[in-house]
Amino acid sequence: MTNLYQDDSLTLHTDLYQLNMMKAYFDDGIHERRSIFEVFFREMPFNSGYVVFAGLERIVSYIENLRFTESDIQYVHDELGFDGPFLEYLKNFKFSGTIRSVREGEFVFKTEPIIQVEANLAEAQLIETALLNIVNFQTLIATKAARIRSVVDDDSLAEFGTRRAQEMDAAIWGTRAAYIGGCDSTSNVRAGKIFGIPVSGTMAHAMVQAYRDEYEAFKSYAKTHKNSIFLVDTYDTLKSGVPNAIRVAQELGDEINFIGIRLDSGDMAFLSKKARQMLDEAGFPDAKIFASSDLDEHTILSLKAQKAKIDSWGVGTKLITAYDQPALGAVYKMAAIADENDVLQDSIKLSSNTEKVSTPGEKRVYRIISESKRPKAEGDYIAMADESLDDVKELTMFHPVHTYITKTVKNFKAKELLIPVFEGGKRVYDLPSLEEIKAYKEKNLALLWGEYKRTVRPEQYPVDLSVKCWKNKMKNIEKVRKSVQLHSPVDLNFPL
Amino acid sequence: MTNLYQDDSLTLHTDLYQLNMMKAYFDDGIHERRSIFEVFFREMPFNSGYVVFAGLERIVSYIENLRFTESDIQYVHDELGFDGPFLEYLKNFKFSGTIRSVREGEFVFKTEPIIQVEANLAEAQLIETALLNIVNFQTLIATKAARIRSVVDDDSLAEFGTRRAQEMDAAIWGTRAAYIGGCDSTSNVRAGKIFGIPVSGTMAHAMVQAYRDEYEAFKSYAKTHKNSIFLVDTYDTLKSGVPNAIRVAQELGDEINFIGIRLDSGDMAFLSKKARQMLDEAGFPDAKIFASSDLDEHTILSLKAQKAKIDSWGVGTKLITAYDQPALGAVYKMAAIADENDVLQDSIKLSSNTEKVSTPGEKRVYRIISESKRPKAEGDYIAMADESLDDVKELTMFHPVHTYITKTVKNFKAKELLIPVFEGGKRVYDLPSLEEIKAYKEKNLALLWGEYKRTVRPEQYPVDLSVKCWKNKMKNIEKVRKSVQLHSPVDLNFPL
Repeated sequence: MTNLYQDDSLTLHTDLYQLNMMKAYFDDGIHERRSIFEVFFREMPFNSGYVVFAGLERIVSYIENLRFTESDIQYVHDELGFDGPFLEYLKNFKFSGTIRSVREGEFVFKTEPIIQVEANLAEAQLIETALLNIVNFQTLIATKAARIRSVVDDDSLAEFGTRRAQEMDAAIWGTRAAYIGGCDSTSNVRAGKIFGIPVSGTMAHAMVQAYRDEYEAFKSYAKTHKNSIFLVDTYDTLKSGVPNAIRVAQELGDEINFIGIRLDSGDMAFLSKKARQMLDEAGFPDAKIFASSDLDEHTILSLKAQKAKIDSWGVGTKLITAYDQPALGAVYKMAAIADENDVLQDSIKLSSNTEKVSTPGEKRVYRIISESKRPKAEGDYIAMADESLDDVKELTMFHPVHTYITKTVKNFKAKELLIPVFEGGKRVYDLPSLEEIKAYKEKNLALLWGEYKRTVRPEQYPVDLSVKCWKNKMKNIEKVRKSVQLHSPVDLNFPL
Repeated sequence: MTNLYQDDSLTLHTDLYQLNMMKAYFDDGIHERRSIFEVFFREMPFNSGYVVFAGLERIVSYIENLRFTESDIQYVHDELGFDGPFLEYLKNFKFSGTIRSVREGEFVFKTEPIIQVEANLAEAQLIETALLNIVNFQTLIATKAARIRSVVDDDSLAEFGTRRAQEMDAAIWGTRAAYIGGCDSTSNVRAGKIFGIPVSGTMAHAMVQAYRDEYEAFKSYAKTHKNSIFLVDTYDTLKSGVPNAIRVAQELGDEINFIGIRLDSGDMAFLSKKARQMLDEAGFPDAKIFASSDLDEHTILSLKAQKAKIDSWGVGTKLITAYDQPALGAVYKMAAIADENDVLQDSIKLSSNTEKVSTPGEKRVYRIISESKRPKAEGDYIAMADESLDDVKELTMFHPVHTYITKTVKNFKAKELLIPVFEGGKRVYDLPSLEEIKAYKEKNLALLWGEYKRTVRPEQYPVDLSVKCWKNKMKNIEKVRKSVQLHSPVDLNFPL
């Protein structure tokens, strides 16, 4: 390693412009103004009907360790030229703000805040990059895994993707997200060690090649690992692999626990049916068939439709990189900023793309859950922080695009989605265990109508603004547009 | 963090099946047999005409630190049940083999070995996962960056993608790979600190929002950062942003160095031309226009064709995730394995997909470079290790698919691509500096015909097997197929 400095902290894991802005705020004496920033995404990844939030544990660790180390200070001084009182400020920097977040394993939807940062300007600015880096990836992978879980039903599902992951953190944290989303195990031993995730894996083609004889390789494997799964496609699945697996299982009999075979290439539908038949005829009806070969929710759905005889799935590349959409695209936008009298003022970012216009002000997010024997989430509801839902007896929810389609919800409870994680820089939230997060995701799943959960063309879950919130947004848009027109020295008809 | 163990080494960053196979080899006493494994990929990513290799520095660091720590041992004992002499073996494990690799910044092509591991079976098996994890990602990003560099010509090019990267390592190592591939700078300060990469960045929309007045925000930024680039699309690029940038530049005059403006949304072709006109008319013909907005080689090529007036490019998501193909798919296959007399024997993996059949034996890879005033790489040539090219006066190179298309190369030199990095477990290669790697990539670029370098439908660079190597491969295929037919208890006509 040619690492130029001895230590490495994550505090500089930020974009240079954050430091540049902090410096400008500091020089103007406004770096300690209160502000509210929100993390949200604008499009549902994979055209999914829901997204599974993940990343909070890593964020907590990042925030708790947020200090400029000696070498960080040395670097920003020597190489970036930061100096004087601002450098002193960085030396004593720690996060002193409030962070609210949805829980890991929570279902979330486009346009709604999933994290709120209420902190002074400088602090809120510094942490943007790392927060997005963490949330964008982990949430993406948890969502992809949940989609795959939804098509494999109760079959076992293993995450196998390390070799194709986008570097090491992606393998490790991606595996954790995949476990939250619905995988049962991972192949990555280090992830097993760090998080306590069950690890799984048997043998590779190399082992068959090492013995230069498939039969010998299987026998040797079975001798050491009584619970045996044989990889059968090194030379020829049906002519060599399956027959050799059967032969070893028959010869070793009760000496081993013949769990089954793994198919890793070729026509999975055809091969699994033929292999099933061969195993059954040889007297191994309980032997399982494992499949792994560029699988995702689409190929698995197709294999299920073809009645492939597969009991257990290993997914790699397509899951760990979220191959069909490798970035979530969550953003971090200012919703409010204190004025010189410390009174929060709405803040908005305009755009010619309506989806990109942010929603200003101090807000809360509620999940509207019907009170019935089988409670369902009817939609999410974004209201201003000073609105109360306590006396609201019915709510009209709008279709996200076609707003003339509405439904009226009575007898509901409103669950607040954003919970305090840090307050005044102190952690106020106990991190749940990974098993608790996984269970929480499952429990939540039951709240969602099936129409939102299917992998192909799901219905769109409603995320509504309260009337007050919507009117406030419109007022802010109008205000900015007027101000721009007022001051603009140019007169242009394009863009609008 | 709920990290269950105190320390974290990368040694367990491997798939469980590697440990399972090591255990089986160990129990059979064949774990120290010599073997050769090779890393190669089967398809050119992005339909690119070339691939830029990266990842070696990280591999070197990984190999040099390869030890099972106390907690690694504790974990594999307590949770995986490894015990006895095998556990003792792991405690004393270190890499003692040989690794040959192409240099970082080298151009490589599908099917050719880019790394060769010659080590005992157990060692070679353990390192597969991490090697692929590193090479697959870093090589992918270096290649993507090289493609983007090729369309921006001499414009400046910055990597901006941390917030969309697949977790933190992807941001850091991806930035390094992007720098090798052709970026001039990164926004990630930590990457700047670790690798000495120049960092760049100015301001975000949040700063304009923080001042609740674009003009005030620009003025404040300029006061602190004399070299000013103003982000002009927070409210309205042409009606507000550009006019305010011009106003501040005019008012502050010589007090600042007005470098230019940054466009971050909207119709880049239209906006850049209008903005150029406004800047020129205001007396700032030298002010630069920076663009950033979901850019990649395709959008940049289109903007260039539309004569967009953009001087400097910031690329994020599409580069750092290799959005259009987020995995390279390199594999690690056994090419040879020693028999009981320590004589290396060829090893091959068959597949019904011809592209997936590996090339057996101990091989060397040569780049055939014409000797002329402007030397060109005419193709790569894979020969058996015991073949010499010293007396070869002319070589016939074949088109990779349409083999009836050939060319004969005379007066060439054969450059060996795989250089020794470790020998007998000791590093024998001095890592070049990042600047040297970057320069090496540029120098190499000059060796490639333009036809291989274009981003759309490039010609296919020839990678040929020597006659001896090809015949040896066919012999091995025949041998395995015969053996499979001989032993197969089933008779099937599908698959072939």
